[in-house]
Amino acid sequence: MNTFVQNQLKSFQEHQKNRGRLLINCADQPGIVAAVSDFLYKQGANILESSQYSTDPKEGTFFMRIEFECEGLKEKKSNVEENFKEIASTFGMEWSFTFSEELKRTAIFVSKELHCLRELLWEWQSGDLITDLALVISNHEECREIVESLGIPFYYIPANKENRPQVEKQQLELLEKYEIDLIILARYMQILTPTFVAQHPNQIINIHHSFLPAFVGARPYERAYQRGVKLIGATSHYVTNDLDEGPIIEQDIMRVDHRADVDSLKKIGRSIERSVLARAVKWHLEDRIIVHQNKTIVF
Amino acid sequence: MNTFVQNQLKSFQEHQKNRGRLLINCADQPGIVAAVSDFLYKQGANILESSQYSTDPKEGTFFMRIEFECEGLKEKKSNVEENFKEIASTFGMEWSFTFSEELKRTAIFVSKELHCLRELLWEWQSGDLITDLALVISNHEECREIVESLGIPFYYIPANKENRPQVEKQQLELLEKYEIDLIILARYMQILTPTFVAQHPNQIINIHHSFLPAFVGARPYERAYQRGVKLIGATSHYVTNDLDEGPIIEQDIMRVDHRADVDSLKKIGRSIERSVLARAVKWHLEDRIIVHQNKTIVF
Amino acid sequence: MNTFVQNQLKSFQEHQKNRGRLLINCADQPGIVAAVSDFLYKQGANILESSQYSTDPKEGTFFMRIEFECEGLKEKKSNVEENFKEIASTFGMEWSFTFSEELKRTAIFVSKELHCLRELLWEWQSGDLITDLALVISNHEECREIVESLGIPFYYIPANKENRPQVEKQQLELLEKYEIDLIILARYMQILTPTFVAQHPNQIINIHHSFLPAFVGARPYERAYQRGVKLIGATSHYVTNDLDEGPIIEQDIMRVDHRADVDSLKKIGRSIERSVLARAVKWHLEDRIIVHQNKTIVF
Amino acid sequence: MNTFVQNQLKSFQEHQKNRGRLLINCADQPGIVAAVSDFLYKQGANILESSQYSTDPKEGTFFMRIEFECEGLKEKKSNVEENFKEIASTFGMEWSFTFSEELKRTAIFVSKELHCLRELLWEWQSGDLITDLALVISNHEECREIVESLGIPFYYIPANKENRPQVEKQQLELLEKYEIDLIILARYMQILTPTFVAQHPNQIINIHHSFLPAFVGARPYERAYQRGVKLIGATSHYVTNDLDEGPIIEQDIMRVDHRADVDSLKKIGRSIERSVLARAVKWHLEDRIIVHQNKTIVF
Repeated sequence: MNTFVQNQLKSFQEHQKNRGRLLINCADQPGIVAAVSDFLYKQGANILESSQYSTDPKEGTFFMRIEFECEGLKEKKSNVEENFKEIASTFGMEWSFTFSEELKRTAIFVSKELHCLRELLWEWQSGDLITDLALVISNHEECREIVESLGIPFYYIPANKENRPQVEKQQLELLEKYEIDLIILARYMQILTPTFVAQHPNQIINIHHSFLPAFVGARPYERAYQRGVKLIGATSHYVTNDLDEGPIIEQDIMRVDHRADVDSLKKIGRSIERSVLARAVKWHLEDRIIVHQNKTIVF
Repeated sequence: MNTFVQNQLKSFQEHQKNRGRLLINCADQPGIVAAVSDFLYKQGANILESSQYSTDPKEGTFFMRIEFECEGLKEKKSNVEENFKEIASTFGMEWSFTFSEELKRTAIFVSKELHCLRELLWEWQSGDLITDLALVISNHEECREIVESLGIPFYYIPANKENRPQVEKQQLELLEKYEIDLIILARYMQILTPTFVAQHPNQIINIHHSFLPAFVGARPYERAYQRGVKLIGATSHYVTNDLDEGPIIEQDIMRVDHRADVDSLKKIGRSIERSVLARAVKWHLEDRIIVHQNKTIVF
Repeated sequence: MNTFVQNQLKSFQEHQKNRGRLLINCADQPGIVAAVSDFLYKQGANILESSQYSTDPKEGTFFMRIEFECEGLKEKKSNVEENFKEIASTFGMEWSFTFSEELKRTAIFVSKELHCLRELLWEWQSGDLITDLALVISNHEECREIVESLGIPFYYIPANKENRPQVEKQQLELLEKYEIDLIILARYMQILTPTFVAQHPNQIINIHHSFLPAFVGARPYERAYQRGVKLIGATSHYVTNDLDEGPIIEQDIMRVDHRADVDSLKKIGRSIERSVLARAVKWHLEDRIIVHQNKTIVF
Repeated sequence: MNTFVQNQLKSFQEHQKNRGRLLINCADQPGIVAAVSDFLYKQGANILESSQYSTDPKEGTFFMRIEFECEGLKEKKSNVEENFKEIASTFGMEWSFTFSEELKRTAIFVSKELHCLRELLWEWQSGDLITDLALVISNHEECREIVESLGIPFYYIPANKENRPQVEKQQLELLEKYEIDLIILARYMQILTPTFVAQHPNQIINIHHSFLPAFVGARPYERAYQRGVKLIGATSHYVTNDLDEGPIIEQDIMRVDHRADVDSLKKIGRSIERSVLARAVKWHLEDRIIVHQNKTIVF
């Protein structure tokens, strides 16, 4: 890896070494916040940021994200997690602690269109995308040079409808070898099989080049042009087995008019795709997203 | 009609009495702009605003809108139209002259939700919607007071699936009696029959409460909530016989997040619907819109 | 007051009768959230919404807003407030409880431009602005009819530079008589004296027709036109004794281009002013705003 | 220069070889459009796009931009220009023809912050910025590698208040040697002297990191933070001798809230700066901008 990026990541880790995040999800009921905040206080933690949401205060599901700082967290980590189990069991929580200095390991999948990849690499180099960018996989050679010049391993795996099983086998082996936590489909133009998706639930982020649910599927810009829309958009979502139907993380749009032909729509669209995907990825890396019933809560 | 509004409209007419608009539409070919601008020059007209667009400079369709000022236009009008026929026939044009002082006559159809009606009335009272607002028709009584207090005739025509033919007969008679040029469906929750639509081609503007083509049909906010979108929108379009498939005039969106329940989406949506419909209506009244193959060119 | 609005406000009060809001502000230190949430739990309250912010986790100021529901709150209110004093004193808090069913009492000041007033009245009639709209004061007669038709007392107090002291005396007496909590300057074109402002700290919301700090002072649209900006905006802020320098609550903009003359800028600006002011007022009414060192925290 | 980019530029030139643009500017008077369009028709040109604007139809200044296609334009060019002189003199026009295949030659000035430079290079590599990117000049070494890796000459010229005259002399010699038409200040943190600016009127585009006229001068993000604004923005403008007072080409903003500290504002701001500068540069390269009395008309 590039030394400059390495130094930035190290400095981030140093700065954040006592920081942790707690994500919670349980049936809404009185006393949750009191119990959790009291617990953190007793561990010596100071709450830096806290967000909560309930689908319904009476019978709903309760969600919470707390970011905290705690002197000597590195040493206490497993202790903190162990101690939390009692509260978690009392309230029937699903929960997870993550620690800011443990960087998530990311793989990017890309095809021929490189604008989303470039944006991610750019943000990563600028220290705005805090992740261990472990490898890039593509079914084309176009981006090899730019990826390898940054010291990131690049794997060229030609893919088409016929060889999908072998391709995915190879990809899954790489993901396992590199211990990948997050897969970013940065305009990767191959459909993943249910087998693949099942192994990475809520860990695959895709960018779709329309404001979903408009223009699900192929060639959205062509269809947007045909329909004569006055806005075009992009949607970042977790991948599920229903094509373009996974939980939406982020969307954005730009105005267009009758003068824009399909090529212009694509050009304008690129800048929306770039920023929408980058935002979604950042929120995932900061553990800001909880998936609930095919929707996302973004704290 | 309210005296204040009447005075505003009169002052508009006085100010614009020498202004006209020319809309053109023909196969693209060399010499169109030269011929048209030379014609206007010879009529003594000064071009105030001119816009053009071609779907393809080689084999496409050419569209043009010119706004011009011409001393003594009132007297010359029919002459100008007559003289233009030669050019029009040379280039095989579809064309129309409209004269700014001849106000379009408008009918508003509305049901129970009054926010779009209120916005239109408000803009009309402020002198920002230049039209002869001839009548309001509703299948509910909710807006009678507000409409009549402005001196606008109000017609209550209860409507449902069963009595549609009689209802539409009555409505069409009113539209004829009042010589209506433009029908605005300001959240009118009844579907119009093909017979009705056929009598007012490109003269009926609807507001749909989603960013079409997402959420065509009923209950779009409920479906937006279910899908977990991060943007909600509204679309103004001409009505055709395909439900929510007519040419789109204007769209806009606002950001929402997981905290917004269906009621919040509706509240946020109201302000988008209001402004999107008002913009579309204004453009129509200013003869800025040309419909071509189920799309709009908005000059 | 209009019966329809009255019924809506009553139904709101009924629905919210057990709801309260707690606003807190103190030096950041460990244990605040734990203590507060434990307190609420012990009062039998369920937290519906909670937001917090710290200017700096080490030496900063901590802010918190909690919305809670508590069976029988009406009866317990004074008790809850009394009991909280111990915690408040431990942490050195500034704090306040407000109860959703106690509507804030609002006065609107307006001059000749009525678009902001209309918007507020419209939102209020739709049940989207939950307040006891007690009176409207104007230095012009233009809005008397629209205000009185809604059953709201209207006071015409001609104002100019010369008679300012007498005018403000009269206004302050009215504000006292009507027990006003919030004063909205809906394009009120008179400057308030320090005496007046001092009596209503953080209780006067103004709408300024530019994106502050650009175009402080008079005639912002004229100056925006002169400068050739490509965006125009509006800013809602609390009034202090420095003209247009008070804490900003909300801002928004719209794009414009070279074609827009001063009149067009004003028209476009109106719709921004309307929505920016309405949002700011709603946030104030929901106790979402904390002022800190000439800035606002909006939860 | 990079072969890929070279090929893209060549293919653009091939595709556009018969295209030209005509910019006009004169006192408004009847017959201009007729004369110009008739002229182009007689040269065998087909109008592809035409825009016009008049500051006032009676006594104003008239502006026009026409993009046209003309078989064999390369050979006819000087002829066309020569023939146009008669019309130009009749109407007292300032005017210029430019030919799409003659690429403008561009220099980028940059300091330590590289995001704007990266965006421009990225757009240029993608074929979305059609220019002959001739050289990059910096007072720091940070971007040497990225610039040289694309085959673009890089000049490191250390600059400070003391050595300004020598530095500018060196810069001006380079601009002359490379025959530069456009200078882009992509976050170049040195002030240019009147001597420098005078040699490149309306040829220097700067990006300022605020929505001007707010926060003219140094440290705009720090001041935006102090003022507590709810929007931050960026402005691209031509450089004149009044700091940050030149004609505005493009502006945009993003929403921020109280949580954003100065560093966050800078991060958010980067993405606005990038896109605002890139749009302004594209419009300049396409001859879409006319400067008139310290304002821009962007066609």
